[in-house]
Amino acid sequence: MSHYSLAAIAEQIAAKLQGDGDIGITGIAPLDSAEPGQISFLDNSSYKQYLATTKASAVILKQEFVAEYRGAALIVDNPYLSYAKVANLFANNKLVKPGIHPTAIVDPSAEIADTATVGAYCVIAANVRIGDYTIIEPHAYIGEQTVIGPHGYLAPKVTIYKNTTIGQKVIIHSGVSIASDGFGYANDKGKWHKIPQLGGVVIGDEVEIGANSCIDRGALNNTVIGNGVKLDNLVQIAHNVIIGEHTAIAACAAIAGSTKIGKYCMIGGCSAIGGHLEIADKVCLTGKAMVTNSIKQPGIYSSCTGVQPNKEWHKSVARFRQLDKIARKVTELERSLKNQPIHDDSSF
Amino acid sequence: MSHYSLAAIAEQIAAKLQGDGDIGITGIAPLDSAEPGQISFLDNSSYKQYLATTKASAVILKQEFVAEYRGAALIVDNPYLSYAKVANLFANNKLVKPGIHPTAIVDPSAEIADTATVGAYCVIAANVRIGDYTIIEPHAYIGEQTVIGPHGYLAPKVTIYKNTTIGQKVIIHSGVSIASDGFGYANDKGKWHKIPQLGGVVIGDEVEIGANSCIDRGALNNTVIGNGVKLDNLVQIAHNVIIGEHTAIAACAAIAGSTKIGKYCMIGGCSAIGGHLEIADKVCLTGKAMVTNSIKQPGIYSSCTGVQPNKEWHKSVARFRQLDKIARKVTELERSLKNQPIHDDSSF
Amino acid sequence: MSHYSLAAIAEQIAAKLQGDGDIGITGIAPLDSAEPGQISFLDNSSYKQYLATTKASAVILKQEFVAEYRGAALIVDNPYLSYAKVANLFANNKLVKPGIHPTAIVDPSAEIADTATVGAYCVIAANVRIGDYTIIEPHAYIGEQTVIGPHGYLAPKVTIYKNTTIGQKVIIHSGVSIASDGFGYANDKGKWHKIPQLGGVVIGDEVEIGANSCIDRGALNNTVIGNGVKLDNLVQIAHNVIIGEHTAIAACAAIAGSTKIGKYCMIGGCSAIGGHLEIADKVCLTGKAMVTNSIKQPGIYSSCTGVQPNKEWHKSVARFRQLDKIARKVTELERSLKNQPIHDDSSF
Repeated sequence: MSHYSLAAIAEQIAAKLQGDGDIGITGIAPLDSAEPGQISFLDNSSYKQYLATTKASAVILKQEFVAEYRGAALIVDNPYLSYAKVANLFANNKLVKPGIHPTAIVDPSAEIADTATVGAYCVIAANVRIGDYTIIEPHAYIGEQTVIGPHGYLAPKVTIYKNTTIGQKVIIHSGVSIASDGFGYANDKGKWHKIPQLGGVVIGDEVEIGANSCIDRGALNNTVIGNGVKLDNLVQIAHNVIIGEHTAIAACAAIAGSTKIGKYCMIGGCSAIGGHLEIADKVCLTGKAMVTNSIKQPGIYSSCTGVQPNKEWHKSVARFRQLDKIARKVTELERSLKNQPIHDDSSF
Repeated sequence: MSHYSLAAIAEQIAAKLQGDGDIGITGIAPLDSAEPGQISFLDNSSYKQYLATTKASAVILKQEFVAEYRGAALIVDNPYLSYAKVANLFANNKLVKPGIHPTAIVDPSAEIADTATVGAYCVIAANVRIGDYTIIEPHAYIGEQTVIGPHGYLAPKVTIYKNTTIGQKVIIHSGVSIASDGFGYANDKGKWHKIPQLGGVVIGDEVEIGANSCIDRGALNNTVIGNGVKLDNLVQIAHNVIIGEHTAIAACAAIAGSTKIGKYCMIGGCSAIGGHLEIADKVCLTGKAMVTNSIKQPGIYSSCTGVQPNKEWHKSVARFRQLDKIARKVTELERSLKNQPIHDDSSF
Repeated sequence: MSHYSLAAIAEQIAAKLQGDGDIGITGIAPLDSAEPGQISFLDNSSYKQYLATTKASAVILKQEFVAEYRGAALIVDNPYLSYAKVANLFANNKLVKPGIHPTAIVDPSAEIADTATVGAYCVIAANVRIGDYTIIEPHAYIGEQTVIGPHGYLAPKVTIYKNTTIGQKVIIHSGVSIASDGFGYANDKGKWHKIPQLGGVVIGDEVEIGANSCIDRGALNNTVIGNGVKLDNLVQIAHNVIIGEHTAIAACAAIAGSTKIGKYCMIGGCSAIGGHLEIADKVCLTGKAMVTNSIKQPGIYSSCTGVQPNKEWHKSVARFRQLDKIARKVTELERSLKNQPIHDDSSF
C-alpha cells in the first residue's frame, strides 16, 4: 500500500500546507467516511458540515474554508482537481510486463512497440501499429491498418475494426466497438440496400471511451473524435459525427449521423442529438435532452419533463395533446374581452 | 425431453389437482398456442377467453376461474409464480462438467472451487476466488482480487475488472462489464483530468444482470447492488450508485452517479435517474421516466408524453414552448373578468 | 485499389451515360470533398449548390438536375441507391480464406460448411450448423443447436446462445448478444423468481444487427426478426417481440416484451415501445418517441419535446405540471363569458 507524508503530498499538488507535514497518509476517502490516516477534500460547499466531524487526518480545501476547519489542511484553488491528483498517488496501478502474450495472434506485418503489452487471446491483424507503452488487455481484436498511439490502455474485449487511427494516451473500456459499419441503407421499393461504409474513425489524444460504447466508421469520410473528448458507457456515435476537443458525453447518449458537436460541450446522459446538425462550442445539454435543430449559441439547454405522480401525469399528458386548442381558446377569450376582431390565432 | 405426470407437477408446485393426475405433460406453452401434452396457465384475466378453446392438456389457474374451465387443472394462488416453477421443470439445463478448460489461463494464485467450471479462453487473474458450482462460460475476463460466490452463472464474454465482490447464485449475461472506471474527471480550464476510480463493486446474492449492461466501480467508496436485484439488458449503473434489495430495473435504464435507490422498486425501461438523488423503497417508475429530484414517497411516477401523429405533435410542442405565456394570459383574463387588481401571475 | 471506367460503372448500375465513358474512376466521395478521379452523387437537392464547384470527375444524378451540371454524368432514377451500388464496387472487401482457424474450438457434432470461415478463438458448441461462405470473425461464441445460414458475416465477439436460427446473408456486428434470457420473473411477496426462458430466437434473411445490440430469447414461444430487418447499434429487443419484414430500427431504441411491429416501419433512434402492443405496417416513429398504446394506422408519430434554453424550459415544465388546472380555468372563463351553466370541465 502506498504511503506518503502530508508534506510530500503538498509538494506533489503544489498546495499550501497548514499543520504537521509529517502526518502519514495511506489513502483518500470522502469526508464522512474517511478514517484516521486518510486524507479527504472539500469541493462542494454542501458537504461543509462534515468538516467538524470528519476523522480524516487532513483535508484538501480552499482558503475560504480554512477558518472552519481545525485539522491539518492542504490549501488549493481547485480542490476537486487536487483530489484527482492525490487519488492518482493511491491508484496502485498494476505494473504490467511489456511483451506479447504467447497466446496472442499477431500478424507478422503488425508493428508492436517493444514497450507495449498485448494480452492473452488478442487477435491483431495485418499492418496494425501499436505505440510505446500501450497496454492491450486480453481478448482484443484490432483490425487491419489500425494505428494506436503510445501510452494507451485498452481494457479487456475491445474491438476495433480496420483503418482506425487512435492518438496517444487513449483509454478504451471493456466491450467498446470502434469503426463498426454505420447505419447506412438506400431504400428501393421498401427494401433496404446496404451502403458499404468506406470511411474510417479518427480518435485524438487523451480520449477516454466508456464500456460498451459504439463509434461507427464513416460512410465516405471519417468519423472524428477530438483530443481530450470523454465518452461514458453505452454512448452511441453514428457515422461521420465530428466531436470537438474536450467535450464530455455522459452515459447512454446518442449522436446521429453527420452531426458536428463543438468543443468544450457537456452532453447529459441519455441525450439524443439528431443527424446533420451543428452544436456550437460550450453547449451544455441536461440529461435526456432531445435536440432536433442546430444550436448556435453556447448555453444550457434542456428538454423532457421530470416525473410526476402517475395520476397527475395522466392529466398533464391528456392536456398536452389539447395544448393547441387550449392556446387558441385563450386567444379567443382575450379578443372577445377586448371586443377586437380576430385576425389570427397565434398571438403567443 | 422431460416428461412428468400432472400429479407429479401438482406435487412439485403444491397445487390442488382437479382431473386426471395420470395425464402426461411434456412441456409448457401459452393458452392460445399450447398443444395436447402441454400444460398452460391463466394469470392475466384478459386471456380468460382462451380457456374455452385451448388445446392444453391441463391449465394452472386460480380457484375463481375453475368454474369456467372443464379440463384438468392445477389450482394455485399465484399462477404466474407456478408457471415459473413448472417452466423450471422443462428448462432442460445442460449438465456442465466441472473443471477448468485447458485453454483457460488461470493465475496460479487464483482459487477455483473443484465443482466450478471455467470455460475455454477465459482469463482469470491473480487472487481471484470462484465458489462452488459456479459456471463461467468462454471468453470471460476476471480481474485480480475479484471474488465470485457459489452457484453463479456467467454467460460468454463477461468482463469483471479487479476488486469486485459477487454473492451467490448470481447470473451475469453476455457482454456485461462490471467495475469499469466511473465517469469521473476534474475540470481545469476546460480540460478534463481523470480521477482514478479507487472504489470497487459489491454485488449481493441472487442478482441477475442482463446482456451488455454496465456497472461502474466507485470513485472512493463502492458501488453496491443489493440482494435479489434484477437488471435487464443495456442498463447503466454509474459509480457509487446503491441499489436496494429486490429492485428490478428494465432495459436501457440509466442511473447516474451516487444515487441511492430503495428496496422493492420497479424502474421502467429507458428511465433516467439523475445523480446524487435518493429514491424511496417501493417506487415504481413507468418507462422513459426522467427523475431529477429525490422521490421520498412510494408510488407510481411517470414522465414523458406518448406519441401523437406528427402534425398534431408539432402543434403541441410549439405550444409547450409558449406554456408560461399561455398560463399568464389565463391568469390575466381571470382577473380582468373579476375586476380584481393583479397581485401576481402564478395563481396555479 | 479498384479502378473502373465511367462506362463500366454506367453498365453496372444501369445508368444513362452522359459524357466521356473512358474517364477512369478510382473512388467515390461526397460532392464537396471529391477529388479528380472520384465519382460523386446528388440525392438531396439541398446539396445542389455543390454541382457547380465539385472536383468530382463524374456525378450520379437524376434527369431533372442534368441541365445544371456540365461534367460527365450518370443519370438514374434513384441516385442514393446507385451510390450504394457504386460504393460496393470500391468496398475493397478482404478476401477471407475459408476454413477453421486452428485455435477455434468446434464441437465434433457441429457442421461447418467447407466454404465457411471460423476465426481465431471462436467457440462453437454441439450440433451447430454454419452455412456456405459464412464468415465468423474471432472470439465468437455459438451455442448448441444454433443454425446460421449461408453468406453470413459475424464481426468479432458476437455471442449467440443456444437454439437460435439465423437465415442467409445476415450481418451481425461486434458485441451483439442474441438469445440471452428474457427479463422474466414472477413476484412472490416482493422477491423475484426467475422464469426460465424456454423459447428461442428466429432471424430471417438479409438482416443486419448493429454493434452491442441485444435480442432476447422468448419466454415460451420465439422472438422473431423478419427478413430484411435492419437494427442499428445498442438496440434492445425483448423476449417474444416480433418484427415485420424490412423494418429499420435506429440506435438505442428499445422494444419491450411481446410487442409486434409491422413491416416497413422506421423506428427512430432512442425510441421506446412498450410491451404487448401492436404497431401497424409502415409506421414511422421520430427519434426518442415513446409508445404506450398500439398504433393501428400507418403514418408518422412523434413525442418528446426538443430542447429549450434551460431557463425557458424550467417555466414550460412548471406549467406542464399545472396543465390540467390551466385547461379547467380556460373552460370556466369561457363559460362565465357566455353566462352558461357549467356542465363539465373537459370541453377540449
